[in-house]
Amino acid sequence: MNRHRFLQLSGGGLAGLCLPSALLGSRGRPVKHPLQAATVDGARLERRMRTLASFGANSAGGIDRVAFSDANVEALDWVAGLLTEAGFTTEIDLAGNLIARKAGTDPELPPLMFGSHIDSVPGGGNYDGQVGSMGSVEAATTLADAGYASRHPLEVAIFSNEEGGKTGSRALVGEVEAFELDIETASGFSIGEGLKRLGGDPNRLAEARRPHGSLAAFLELHIEQGAVLDADGIDIGVVEGIVGIMRWNVTVDGVTNHAGTTPMDRRADAMVGAARFVDLVHRTARETPGRQVATVGRLIAEPGVPNVIPGRVTATLEIRDLSMDGIVRLFDAIHGRTESIATEAHTTFSFDRFYTSRAAPTDERIQERVADAAQELGLSARGMPSGAGHDAQSIALIAPVGMIFVPSVAGISHAPEEHTSAADVTNGANVLLHTLLAIDAEGV
Amino acid sequence: MNRHRFLQLSGGGLAGLCLPSALLGSRGRPVKHPLQAATVDGARLERRMRTLASFGANSAGGIDRVAFSDANVEALDWVAGLLTEAGFTTEIDLAGNLIARKAGTDPELPPLMFGSHIDSVPGGGNYDGQVGSMGSVEAATTLADAGYASRHPLEVAIFSNEEGGKTGSRALVGEVEAFELDIETASGFSIGEGLKRLGGDPNRLAEARRPHGSLAAFLELHIEQGAVLDADGIDIGVVEGIVGIMRWNVTVDGVTNHAGTTPMDRRADAMVGAARFVDLVHRTARETPGRQVATVGRLIAEPGVPNVIPGRVTATLEIRDLSMDGIVRLFDAIHGRTESIATEAHTTFSFDRFYTSRAAPTDERIQERVADAAQELGLSARGMPSGAGHDAQSIALIAPVGMIFVPSVAGISHAPEEHTSAADVTNGANVLLHTLLAIDAEGV
Repeated sequence: MNRHRFLQLSGGGLAGLCLPSALLGSRGRPVKHPLQAATVDGARLERRMRTLASFGANSAGGIDRVAFSDANVEALDWVAGLLTEAGFTTEIDLAGNLIARKAGTDPELPPLMFGSHIDSVPGGGNYDGQVGSMGSVEAATTLADAGYASRHPLEVAIFSNEEGGKTGSRALVGEVEAFELDIETASGFSIGEGLKRLGGDPNRLAEARRPHGSLAAFLELHIEQGAVLDADGIDIGVVEGIVGIMRWNVTVDGVTNHAGTTPMDRRADAMVGAARFVDLVHRTARETPGRQVATVGRLIAEPGVPNVIPGRVTATLEIRDLSMDGIVRLFDAIHGRTESIATEAHTTFSFDRFYTSRAAPTDERIQERVADAAQELGLSARGMPSGAGHDAQSIALIAPVGMIFVPSVAGISHAPEEHTSAADVTNGANVLLHTLLAIDAEGV
Repeated sequence: MNRHRFLQLSGGGLAGLCLPSALLGSRGRPVKHPLQAATVDGARLERRMRTLASFGANSAGGIDRVAFSDANVEALDWVAGLLTEAGFTTEIDLAGNLIARKAGTDPELPPLMFGSHIDSVPGGGNYDGQVGSMGSVEAATTLADAGYASRHPLEVAIFSNEEGGKTGSRALVGEVEAFELDIETASGFSIGEGLKRLGGDPNRLAEARRPHGSLAAFLELHIEQGAVLDADGIDIGVVEGIVGIMRWNVTVDGVTNHAGTTPMDRRADAMVGAARFVDLVHRTARETPGRQVATVGRLIAEPGVPNVIPGRVTATLEIRDLSMDGIVRLFDAIHGRTESIATEAHTTFSFDRFYTSRAAPTDERIQERVADAAQELGLSARGMPSGAGHDAQSIALIAPVGMIFVPSVAGISHAPEEHTSAADVTNGANVLLHTLLAIDAEGV
């Protein structure tokens, strides 16, 4: 395992930068960007991560920086200041996104966007969104420090309200519906009120939309929020896509009955039917080739007392896969096998799909760029799906996107214990930087 | 099937009573009691059942005659009046039980007690407790009408607060603990206040205790509250005992994790462990020879949302059997097999027993008397456990007890839909009458 190895020039910055005249990329192509050996300033990045963590810090060691809170507003202002220092022009767009722009040398090229979010779940940790945001700021600062003149215009985006519904990134692709503005958020403000607090304008949200093809690419660095990289000692996850999600309410109906007076062979026990269903879901998802996952996270038995045979159990079924067809195939397999459970347990099953989130594959060329960057930097990398949703998922509707994962210790996320080592944060920022440079030089 | 056939002399009562001089009982013994062909007045019984149903009647067709309510007090007074009419001396004892007494001809013999309860669960039906209470009143009235002079003193008991903890019958055996008096009941009164409302004295409850051996026997007629008799077309259940009950809280611990980012083969899903446990409980209870039952009635998954792998599931396990050893054996079998589930699902299981109710076998000689009575009356009968608790369970601590079950339509109980046909109620009262006569003549 070669985790926790990372590249950093002494003192950070680009002092002593070595620029060999004819390096070859991993695919045998000549590398065209001039910052081949450039690396970010890990110490600065770590310091800034720590400062960001102070906005909304709670006593548990995590943060309560929910979207639209004072902590969110103040932190966003601080981040804007860092980008201004790096020579970017910053503004809050109509959707409450912080957008920092720097012009490119080729007026024909669309912007190259990168970023993430800085809002948290209530009682969240210090890495989800924050690694990608500060990694982007660090990459931008490193480029500025080096006096790098990009061909593409650069845009750093810190999206609004990722945790509460990806409002900012979805607004950029015209997906926010009017009713959402009235949804109350953990901040106590509605989404509409919250966007105003950040400096957006909910009444003009439609104007925030970016047309298809208006971005050269979008890159997002993020923590894995799963344990695969950490457990297997891999430095970098090359995200193959953000999985699609379908969720169903599953109702199992039997007959409520006295647990003392009803012999075992005369029961129509909804709990037994539901239990066999849970096992079926797990086994089927495991035995099917692929990386799909299926989960029964909620299960409610009625009446739910020790001495009554449950007559009804309601449960949820969630399936995620990179392919929507894969989700449907797995559901069909589970659904088909449910019939024999129903018959054997004298119960009936009904399924009601209540949620669908489209899968968002990342661009395969960008996946290669990310893998190349990791290899250039001497980091181990592995292709993997993103099981969680991200802003990149929205932007994928209008531009080629790529995502870079860094390890989450023990896979813990959305909790104060969420952790990614400073070395891994730096590795991720370096891969982001090198991927940006490659795309800027050669296109996606 | 010969259900719904029942014996009734024209016009009821004992007019035209035929008394053959030398009948043989089903066991070949000469029957010694003189009312061999006596039957209760089914029409009167049905009429009185209907009157009783008016106390606390609700709009759903059931009753809200919870213990200590005005409806309970008024109904008890009405029942006392019927017994007074039948020549009994009535009193409310210190435990709020209505006790109606009639002397016997043999001053050496202890009383022969029979009865049940008239209180209901909230939103209860018209048969639970009421069939046994009115069946007892009807048997007592039939004997009075016939001028039957029993050898044993007779006592009809209508026990207090059966549904809320069998207070009356448990007080007779000295099992009510002081703290119970403060428990608030569905009536709004504490048990202590409620006992006073009925005419008892909670401060002198200890004096309500009857010594061991102070009763010749206790008989209780009751609805089955299960579907066995109804489904199989059997008239009479000869109750072999009231099952013992043990209940455990079962805690399944896994690891809470993101349902999207945790691959199937890296999960420690407490829901999967719990589901396999539910299936194990059901299969083990079913496959083990005997009539034991095991139920998982409550199951709570935490955090209980569609997109999180549950890290903890708490569930209940209840086992009932006529033999406490049988309960322990079944638990041991389940517990032993839980280990492989725990290992396979990467979960741990812990069991905490929180409730034990001793099994109360009925007297085998009385079981035979009940079976004989059914046979004499041309009724089909079957031995069976009582899966539910009853007042007879308390009295079994001080006297030989017997129970007679009549069918519950579809096994429904504790609901307005609870039903037992008038024919079955009459059958039950006749079996009670004949069993009483046999015991009075020959002892248990």
